[in-house]
Amino acid sequence: MPRLRLTIAYTGTAYHGWQIQIRKDKYLPTVQALLERSLHKITGQKVHVHAAGRTDAGVHARAQVAHADVPDSLAHMDWQLALNTSLPKDIRIMDACLVADSFHAQFDAISKRYTYRLWLSRRCTPPWLAPYVWACGPVHVEAMDEAAQLLCGTHDFASLQNRGTDIKTTIRTVESITRDPNGPIANTDANIELAWTFCANGFLKQMVRNMMGLLVTVGRGKLPPSAVTDILTTCDRRHAGITAPAHGLTLTEVLYLSGC
Amino acid sequence: MPRLRLTIAYTGTAYHGWQIQIRKDKYLPTVQALLERSLHKITGQKVHVHAAGRTDAGVHARAQVAHADVPDSLAHMDWQLALNTSLPKDIRIMDACLVADSFHAQFDAISKRYTYRLWLSRRCTPPWLAPYVWACGPVHVEAMDEAAQLLCGTHDFASLQNRGTDIKTTIRTVESITRDPNGPIANTDANIELAWTFCANGFLKQMVRNMMGLLVTVGRGKLPPSAVTDILTTCDRRHAGITAPAHGLTLTEVLYLSGC
Repeated sequence: MPRLRLTIAYTGTAYHGWQIQIRKDKYLPTVQALLERSLHKITGQKVHVHAAGRTDAGVHARAQVAHADVPDSLAHMDWQLALNTSLPKDIRIMDACLVADSFHAQFDAISKRYTYRLWLSRRCTPPWLAPYVWACGPVHVEAMDEAAQLLCGTHDFASLQNRGTDIKTTIRTVESITRDPNGPIANTDANIELAWTFCANGFLKQMVRNMMGLLVTVGRGKLPPSAVTDILTTCDRRHAGITAPAHGLTLTEVLYLSGC
Repeated sequence: MPRLRLTIAYTGTAYHGWQIQIRKDKYLPTVQALLERSLHKITGQKVHVHAAGRTDAGVHARAQVAHADVPDSLAHMDWQLALNTSLPKDIRIMDACLVADSFHAQFDAISKRYTYRLWLSRRCTPPWLAPYVWACGPVHVEAMDEAAQLLCGTHDFASLQNRGTDIKTTIRTVESITRDPNGPIANTDANIELAWTFCANGFLKQMVRNMMGLLVTVGRGKLPPSAVTDILTTCDRRHAGITAPAHGLTLTEVLYLSGC
């Protein structure tokens, strides 16, 4: 069967995350469930969609990647048009193309980028930003920059994962954490958005939200930047501050070896 | 009574515009109705809110300006906090301050800026942009630039108004129409946003949407840019193309003489 590669954008506000979930014999609204329902409508068959990574309830995506095998007879249809016609407007197929049977959205991904957006005023978040930012209030950005650098590299991130996933190792490599705007900002700039982009070869469960929660804890002066190293060493979630809310987080890019 | 000046941002998607509307003895959801309800809750009194300009159903605002007279005893409360606590998240008070009794949000405004956002691909609009752009498809931007310049200046805009308002004259001065990005764009750039900002000393009913509809008609090659001059001369709405949809439009700024 021909294999489709889909690039998917979604606003996660209305969804219980990516993955199909059944409760009381009913499908909860999830991105995967809606995509598979659309594919079923179009093909008349059960088509499984496999994503690069599952996003949590409320998390957004600019370029989630997934693959799905479709019937031979429909291989050359306009999949982007067909799926976008069937899907709600907060889920959009940004690209659809046929790829080699060997392509695997999850296993071939070499790295992922997540962006977490902060809004530094608590008084008012503009309505168009509110679904996408955490209005965390004032923070010391320099302290957060320092802490972010200590999170980069290969570490055991056990203290920054939430349990519930069966994994072999909690060691991951955070390739970079960058801030936009990347220059200094004044402490008086309350009405400003900061975005942090985390790039890693893999993330543990809620690891980005836990890293961001830790950075904001440091930014609020409740922990010194140097505490990051100690927290990683303890491998204990209880020492690592708060979990940043889901709605500030967007999966922005999945990277593959060229040719995928 | 002390006079408040409010700067208000809203996403118009869920609202029947700014102005209070009563249908079958019920208030329709409008921005003014919700603001007045919040002021009533806070003050225990009926407080009228007067805006710089009424926006249509579905139109957004970044900085609508309004004034309201509040009880003496409450003059110095934190109005931004109190109102934002009471209002839904798609309506936000960005600023609230006490002004002279003589300030009038509508009559003192010397000029207004509206921005209309276009998305040049019809295949897929990213979910976070969809509520704010008109996915109009490909257009010839140079032709639109030429047409836009012909709309600038002092003209009788009767052919670009929708009827239903009691006004003395249909002559207005369009001070500028600017495009962002303001450089040339390639005709192959489908996945691009263009924003047009219209600045005038006043706008007739649906005039910005009618100007944008005319520009897109020119951009689609259905009228030459020079047709703009003829259309203004006819003073007849029927010759002037389509009305652009409300959801692409945002009231971005109301300008006052300094001191207001």
